[in-house]
Amino acid sequence: MKYIMRVNVRTRSVSMQEATGDQLKWGGRSFIAHTLLREVPPTCEPLGRYNKLIFASGLLADTNLTTTGKISIGGKSPLTGGAKEANTGGYAGKRLARLGLRAVIIEDIPEKKTTDVLVITASGARLDPAPELAGKLVDEAIAQLRQKYGRRVGIFCIGPAGEMKMAAAGIASPDDADEQIRYAARGGLGALMGSKGLKAVIVDDTGATYKPEVYDEAGLRELVRWTVEELAADAKTRNRNLYGTLDILKDTNEFGMLPTRNFSQGSFEGADRLTGPAVRDLILSRGGRTGKPCVPGCTIQCSSVFPDEKGNRIVATMQYESLVLLGPNCGIGDPTDIAELNQLCNQVGVDAMETGVAIGVAMEAGVIPFGDAEGAKDLIRQIGQGTWLGRILGNGAVITGRCLGVRRVPAIKGQAIPAYDPRALKGNGVTYTTSPMGADHTAGNAFETRNTHNPLSPDGQVEISMRLQVRAALLDTLGVCIFIRPPFAKKPEMMAKILQARYGWDLSVQQMNGIGLECIMTERAFNRQAGVSEEFRPIPEFMREEPLPPKNSVFDVPEEKMLHIWEGYVPSADQF
Amino acid sequence: MKYIMRVNVRTRSVSMQEATGDQLKWGGRSFIAHTLLREVPPTCEPLGRYNKLIFASGLLADTNLTTTGKISIGGKSPLTGGAKEANTGGYAGKRLARLGLRAVIIEDIPEKKTTDVLVITASGARLDPAPELAGKLVDEAIAQLRQKYGRRVGIFCIGPAGEMKMAAAGIASPDDADEQIRYAARGGLGALMGSKGLKAVIVDDTGATYKPEVYDEAGLRELVRWTVEELAADAKTRNRNLYGTLDILKDTNEFGMLPTRNFSQGSFEGADRLTGPAVRDLILSRGGRTGKPCVPGCTIQCSSVFPDEKGNRIVATMQYESLVLLGPNCGIGDPTDIAELNQLCNQVGVDAMETGVAIGVAMEAGVIPFGDAEGAKDLIRQIGQGTWLGRILGNGAVITGRCLGVRRVPAIKGQAIPAYDPRALKGNGVTYTTSPMGADHTAGNAFETRNTHNPLSPDGQVEISMRLQVRAALLDTLGVCIFIRPPFAKKPEMMAKILQARYGWDLSVQQMNGIGLECIMTERAFNRQAGVSEEFRPIPEFMREEPLPPKNSVFDVPEEKMLHIWEGYVPSADQF
Repeated sequence: MKYIMRVNVRTRSVSMQEATGDQLKWGGRSFIAHTLLREVPPTCEPLGRYNKLIFASGLLADTNLTTTGKISIGGKSPLTGGAKEANTGGYAGKRLARLGLRAVIIEDIPEKKTTDVLVITASGARLDPAPELAGKLVDEAIAQLRQKYGRRVGIFCIGPAGEMKMAAAGIASPDDADEQIRYAARGGLGALMGSKGLKAVIVDDTGATYKPEVYDEAGLRELVRWTVEELAADAKTRNRNLYGTLDILKDTNEFGMLPTRNFSQGSFEGADRLTGPAVRDLILSRGGRTGKPCVPGCTIQCSSVFPDEKGNRIVATMQYESLVLLGPNCGIGDPTDIAELNQLCNQVGVDAMETGVAIGVAMEAGVIPFGDAEGAKDLIRQIGQGTWLGRILGNGAVITGRCLGVRRVPAIKGQAIPAYDPRALKGNGVTYTTSPMGADHTAGNAFETRNTHNPLSPDGQVEISMRLQVRAALLDTLGVCIFIRPPFAKKPEMMAKILQARYGWDLSVQQMNGIGLECIMTERAFNRQAGVSEEFRPIPEFMREEPLPPKNSVFDVPEEKMLHIWEGYVPSADQF
Repeated sequence: MKYIMRVNVRTRSVSMQEATGDQLKWGGRSFIAHTLLREVPPTCEPLGRYNKLIFASGLLADTNLTTTGKISIGGKSPLTGGAKEANTGGYAGKRLARLGLRAVIIEDIPEKKTTDVLVITASGARLDPAPELAGKLVDEAIAQLRQKYGRRVGIFCIGPAGEMKMAAAGIASPDDADEQIRYAARGGLGALMGSKGLKAVIVDDTGATYKPEVYDEAGLRELVRWTVEELAADAKTRNRNLYGTLDILKDTNEFGMLPTRNFSQGSFEGADRLTGPAVRDLILSRGGRTGKPCVPGCTIQCSSVFPDEKGNRIVATMQYESLVLLGPNCGIGDPTDIAELNQLCNQVGVDAMETGVAIGVAMEAGVIPFGDAEGAKDLIRQIGQGTWLGRILGNGAVITGRCLGVRRVPAIKGQAIPAYDPRALKGNGVTYTTSPMGADHTAGNAFETRNTHNPLSPDGQVEISMRLQVRAALLDTLGVCIFIRPPFAKKPEMMAKILQARYGWDLSVQQMNGIGLECIMTERAFNRQAGVSEEFRPIPEFMREEPLPPKNSVFDVPEEKMLHIWEGYVPSADQF
């Protein structure tokens, strides 16, 4: 992908440049990091004129490697105030790559409130005024976009939450059947898109003429084949295909790290109904589907379509994080209720994780009782309606805690903590605290080390987190899914070979890991200037004070160790 | 004052120590600054266990010098996240001094939500449970406190906003007649008090035996007399006595620095009804009062009692800042309406300035139209009721802007900008941006330089602000009102002589100014560790972009100059 498109929403002008030498080395998350550091003033107002909304293809997006349809979206976060990258499946990302677009950078804000659709085609781009889409729920907006732009286009779209510039708003991207609504959920990028006056971005790759200059076509083909075969042979791939991300719920519950009732417990009494096998059985018994891909060409196919009793889709897909934070974290145990809550988040256009945590905080404040599923649905509807309470909740857990006077707010650097309590999975506490992203499990999830390293011990967690943070940044830069990992865990040099086959780069494993490290360092440089760092924004006090049942552990990794993270760090030469 | 009282609201224990050598040098604001830096973790949660609420007497509080009844209250601010001192009149401060109390430090938070009254007497202190006061408006709470504790006690008290831990909540202190309700308004100290479970603090100095060890009794008496005579002879004192702080409104309007309709204009078409003389005439025509002291023994007496048409008090006192921000800034021009808005703020217990700005932001969002006085009254009532909208507004202008999706939010370091637009009084823009307090006119108000230095010029404003910031910090450390200034502007060495007569200190004017500078440097050291600095939190973007009519100037003091403020600064040897 060799083109950079810039769209100025104030002047309504579009320009295209070929990527420069530096830009040709960046992809996905690292493209966003470097662009932020070079072009965006770190102290700018996230919803103001000087922030930029960046869509960036991963380095491998224009290959046939499995999972490479993921697209990175980023900017200065309205939620954390720091550098933010969130990536998502859906069918729009792959189309940007087919157009040869390494990145689309949206600049400035409109003079007056507008509702536009950015239409990207093989011959350029334009802004279509679309006042008729203002305030529309996501499914409704997508349906209208299909009528106008057809079925064979990729779509990015925000809900009313993004239009109202709520800091929990995400950016949706459907598959071509509009069955799955995937989200670049975290960090309030939907509000950033709303501030640019964009309700949607259409990516139409009809007539695309871009051909990637592949260094070693045959070698790449062979490596792509090898990856798929190795993946298929791995037991984890099979489990993911069957159960999706819910595969892990039984374990997180048993390890006592499953956030329950606003992070006051680490296991949920009703977890049996929410495990991978239990939810799969329910889905299949109702005529739903499992084993669906979230991006074109993915061979893992971990997604599902969760139906109601009549077999009609409620939500697709049902993910571990959303299920836990909207479910047990709110004291809610009925999977159908949780699916409805998740779908409501998708429709109003908010991060289901941030919203689940915000509702948990509201329940602690007594707004509705824990376990009140109908009450929780009403709260999410209120976000979409922009009621005053909805505006509080739609701005995330921290604002909710502040407005409702709650001290126990599970958030770090302004972002809600994902569905692994850091008191029982301490490596994640390190990631949440030190990652430039704030509390983000995808930035380095230590769950995989639970059987090899005591997750309750404070020792060694900084080292675990560092390795995983580097790997996460690398994967997000390549534009692949973390589930591609198994073959490369055994043979990390094979990923370097894939980069060589695509670009001709001759990288050792250590140099390849260096790409991830360099991405993090770039984000940290931006964040340091924005005042967003673990130095100023530690883990919530209650997590250091209040033991989490049933393991009754507090978070006790010394702050000192986290403040000096990365000092003298050298990327691994043999691990991935 | 030689005693430090500590109250732990978790263990419900009280201890008294004699002030140490260091502590004996600190008073008021500097006592708070040093105590924060030594005892409070800069990154702690403002409403959590590790923050402290500090009441600190000024260095001259136990003298008869005019205006010395002011008391400093502070802690880590729930609004700015940095060091905070707010001071207030009322009759409680002087009583703390009579008890020999240099400071009262409230520590920890209660295990469960409580409503207590801290009762300080000559023989110690105790916590009286007072569930009957929960949720009471300020006047009502004070009336009940009087029934129980009598008329001859000092009172600090919070309204429902403080109990709900709203970040715009202040701490009220009445005079002995409960006619004037004075406020330590800024920075959310009412929320900090609420987090400690304290509805009120009673200061009963009956039987006080403390006698200050005055270095030179006769000399001090003579200096006190000289000050009063010089003050009385100054034209400014007379104007203040007649018109209070409203004396300046005519000028701020003519200079185009009067915030109007959410800081979109710098003068107000209805300003004639709001000038000092106009409001005085109205007050007197209704049988109200002017020329009242806000602290016992003050000879300036700039306060007023603003009555309704039947002569009953609406509010006391009517101040310039509150009047402008609740009035013109909300497009409201009727002085009686503004008085009612101010009184509603006093009753629910919020900073009238922060609230005026928050309502202006809400008006910009279209919640109610500019000029809708009845709507604005309803909004303030909603703060007291804790409706969802009330909880948004009660958390200040920044949260209001964030929840309502408004970009034009006039606030710096989290705190609403006072009633001098920094685009037309650029020295104040420097103070707002660089003061450890955030946007605070009392931290260094350049208004007095308007005729000697062009307030629209960016040049020289950093120098003006530095001098005024040092003076403000010194006055807040001495515990005197800024209106004591005129005699010392001519003869700054006389204030050093007063310190010598009281304490025996032999200070040059430069050394005395050094007390102010050292206070600021201590606050900055705390803030630097808390991540609160002009480096990360600049002036709002719209103030650098949007010219302010009628002068059509933007804020254009270079950021660079403000980032390096204080580098190599030497306090003045001959100015005060």
